[in-house]
Amino acid sequence: MTDAVVVGAGLAGSLTAVYLARRGWRVRVLERRADPRTPGAREEGRSINLGLSQRGIVALREVGLLDALAPATVPMRGRVVHSPDGALRFQPYGTGEDQILHSVLRHDLNVALVDEAERRGVEFRWGHRVTAVDRQRPSVTTDGPQGTVEHTARLVVGADGAFSAVRAGLARGARTTLHQEHLEWGYKELLIPVGDDGRPRTELRALHVWPGDDGLIVAHPNVDGSLTATVFLPFEGREGFAGLGTGARVREFFARRFPDALTLVPDLVEQFLAHPPASLVTIRTEPWHATAPHGRGVVLLGDAAHAVYPFFGQGMNAAFEDCSVLDRCLAAHPHDLPGALAAFEAARRPHTDVLAELSKRNFVELRDRLRSPLFLARKKADLVLHRMFPRSWVPLYTLIAHTTVPYGEALARARRQDRLLGGVTAALTGAALAGLAHRSRRTRGRRQVS
Amino acid sequence: MTDAVVVGAGLAGSLTAVYLARRGWRVRVLERRADPRTPGAREEGRSINLGLSQRGIVALREVGLLDALAPATVPMRGRVVHSPDGALRFQPYGTGEDQILHSVLRHDLNVALVDEAERRGVEFRWGHRVTAVDRQRPSVTTDGPQGTVEHTARLVVGADGAFSAVRAGLARGARTTLHQEHLEWGYKELLIPVGDDGRPRTELRALHVWPGDDGLIVAHPNVDGSLTATVFLPFEGREGFAGLGTGARVREFFARRFPDALTLVPDLVEQFLAHPPASLVTIRTEPWHATAPHGRGVVLLGDAAHAVYPFFGQGMNAAFEDCSVLDRCLAAHPHDLPGALAAFEAARRPHTDVLAELSKRNFVELRDRLRSPLFLARKKADLVLHRMFPRSWVPLYTLIAHTTVPYGEALARARRQDRLLGGVTAALTGAALAGLAHRSRRTRGRRQVS
Repeated sequence: MTDAVVVGAGLAGSLTAVYLARRGWRVRVLERRADPRTPGAREEGRSINLGLSQRGIVALREVGLLDALAPATVPMRGRVVHSPDGALRFQPYGTGEDQILHSVLRHDLNVALVDEAERRGVEFRWGHRVTAVDRQRPSVTTDGPQGTVEHTARLVVGADGAFSAVRAGLARGARTTLHQEHLEWGYKELLIPVGDDGRPRTELRALHVWPGDDGLIVAHPNVDGSLTATVFLPFEGREGFAGLGTGARVREFFARRFPDALTLVPDLVEQFLAHPPASLVTIRTEPWHATAPHGRGVVLLGDAAHAVYPFFGQGMNAAFEDCSVLDRCLAAHPHDLPGALAAFEAARRPHTDVLAELSKRNFVELRDRLRSPLFLARKKADLVLHRMFPRSWVPLYTLIAHTTVPYGEALARARRQDRLLGGVTAALTGAALAGLAHRSRRTRGRRQVS
Repeated sequence: MTDAVVVGAGLAGSLTAVYLARRGWRVRVLERRADPRTPGAREEGRSINLGLSQRGIVALREVGLLDALAPATVPMRGRVVHSPDGALRFQPYGTGEDQILHSVLRHDLNVALVDEAERRGVEFRWGHRVTAVDRQRPSVTTDGPQGTVEHTARLVVGADGAFSAVRAGLARGARTTLHQEHLEWGYKELLIPVGDDGRPRTELRALHVWPGDDGLIVAHPNVDGSLTATVFLPFEGREGFAGLGTGARVREFFARRFPDALTLVPDLVEQFLAHPPASLVTIRTEPWHATAPHGRGVVLLGDAAHAVYPFFGQGMNAAFEDCSVLDRCLAAHPHDLPGALAAFEAARRPHTDVLAELSKRNFVELRDRLRSPLFLARKKADLVLHRMFPRSWVPLYTLIAHTTVPYGEALARARRQDRLLGGVTAALTGAALAGLAHRSRRTRGRRQVS
């Protein structure tokens, strides 16, 4: 029997395997897909690059992988905001060297984690589809190249994503809570290729954002000088994916709403029509763990425990922080696995519940609230105060992306600041407000996508 | 190919089958369990008697079953409230003849519905467990006495309860919402047998309620003179099911909290310890239907679409109302099944969403708010105003239980009344409030369980 069976060799699963192997555990990872290092292996339907922020960075540094990954990442020092008139504005993320994000390909990061896990003795079984989970043994049964196999372990880790089979196994016949919601918006990804001169077509060391009232584009840079843009739109309606079914409609839509995207992506229409839109899901569930006889147990982490919308750029970062928190709980309860799992859930779930809410709220803000002059005035005051008092006044986005302050505490602190800000904003003169309202088109760019 | 395949031969499924057969449809019902008419067949883990209120009554009348069922039901004209000191108080449900509930055994009602469906040509397949649902054909695959069979139909109805396999089939790869929560309280059922003299041990023509701060008992009468009591308690804690594991603890607990229950149920300790507590789940999901090529479709109803906590006594009644609403939508769109299903979901889901919230809220009220003198004063004023203006002022409970006003409209109306009542309550003199506070022990009985 192995010490741990990890279901899912994605980012959360392979990093968990690295952490457990560091503790000397024998670890087996079961993955439905093929080895990502196989030539031609490519994940389908997943966002292909991601923004590493502080929480993810800290976890990768803990397992000694951060420096090795550096050549595969592009630092993003702020946001470049694209206006419909073609104007660009740069907004730095912060003043400190540590207030930057790092863009990385999901595929490169995953391969680095799998390589590191194998180097530490982790056994990967590819092409293994989970058909049953027994939370009492505990065990995972798979169909794969060797037929049906039951894998037992002291610890079963469900790192198998938003539609987790391990979570379903935990829930069977138990009193569990599950909240699953899909956003009414979906997304498509477009490649902004390197220019004909071999150089990037736009500023590379930044996150690019195209704000819009009922649509949004975000682009992350790649090390080869290309960028990957993600177009977020409603599924339904004439201005949504459903209404954009022909080349003429797509071209007209982008020419009107995001004109410079047509320049940056020469084959935009072909790329846009090549794939159906992907959907966005949020998951909250409870419990995250179950204990079994003989000090064994099952635990969920990453998207299996708390899939969130991407509008705070925290999905992967939260999953990596899970791995780090679980590792600390195992260290604190070396001879008591049930105690460690209970401590992990108690320490972590309240904070990812907050993240789920924040990620939902940020979508609503992106979609609606930025039209409100009062909201924009508050955002502006928030940033001004942060520059004046960089330590004592920290905007919520900064707390989430550039620190490891637990999500729940970050929100509590931001709420206290918000109440103060209410007073500050109310104290602004009507003239200032009127001025801001007139400038709201320009200020709209202060959206926080990542 | 049959016209409709209904999954689940419980109350919602068999009533749906009756409605569809009335329209001349060929209907097949697939049920995992054995035929309830088989000697010894008994449903496990389900509440065994239920309170039929206006919505359920109207549906049964529509299919012509109400009169035939009358001998199997016991009218409940109000609530009998049991105090710890042994005092009983009777609260009539209302003044009108129609403001009564009818207690009926789930088993008797189910058998009557299955008999009626068969009389109308519906085919029942017992012992058929669903293994797959294809929402595009649509079809349902079952394992059963004849092995694996795929059943295709124009319409697949998921009436298969809170853990619906049809709902899972609708969700696979689709953008669905699911909210599933379990209550931290569970329940056990106890039989209050007929007395040694062959007569009921307590008033038969009423619902019995034992209010309590952290526990609650409700009892429904049976036609043989016995009653079925349901004990609701927290799962955890010394005063919850977890803490009541020995005969001594159970006896001490009931002697202190619900002393007359020990008299009414002579073998209470044995009954209480014989079974584990059952759990209570609430489900909200979206969408309820999917359309398939060639004018076909899949639809959910009853608990599969909206399981609710039992604290408004509406689970079965809402399910029966679903059947009636679906039937009206099929009548309104005779040649357009997708249109009928869309109309059904649009007409019905907003109202059962409200019911789910009301049923949750009523639990919290039962548990917490009845301790508040202000809340009790409002409740009292609500009832007084209803007596003064029986048509224009109708309390929420009355609207839900004794009318067929859609749940959402009932809530909206109650909210308007509530705002007025806020004013009325505020106008009460401090003396009156103080007096009510002193009497709050007595008034506690105004809980609305059913």
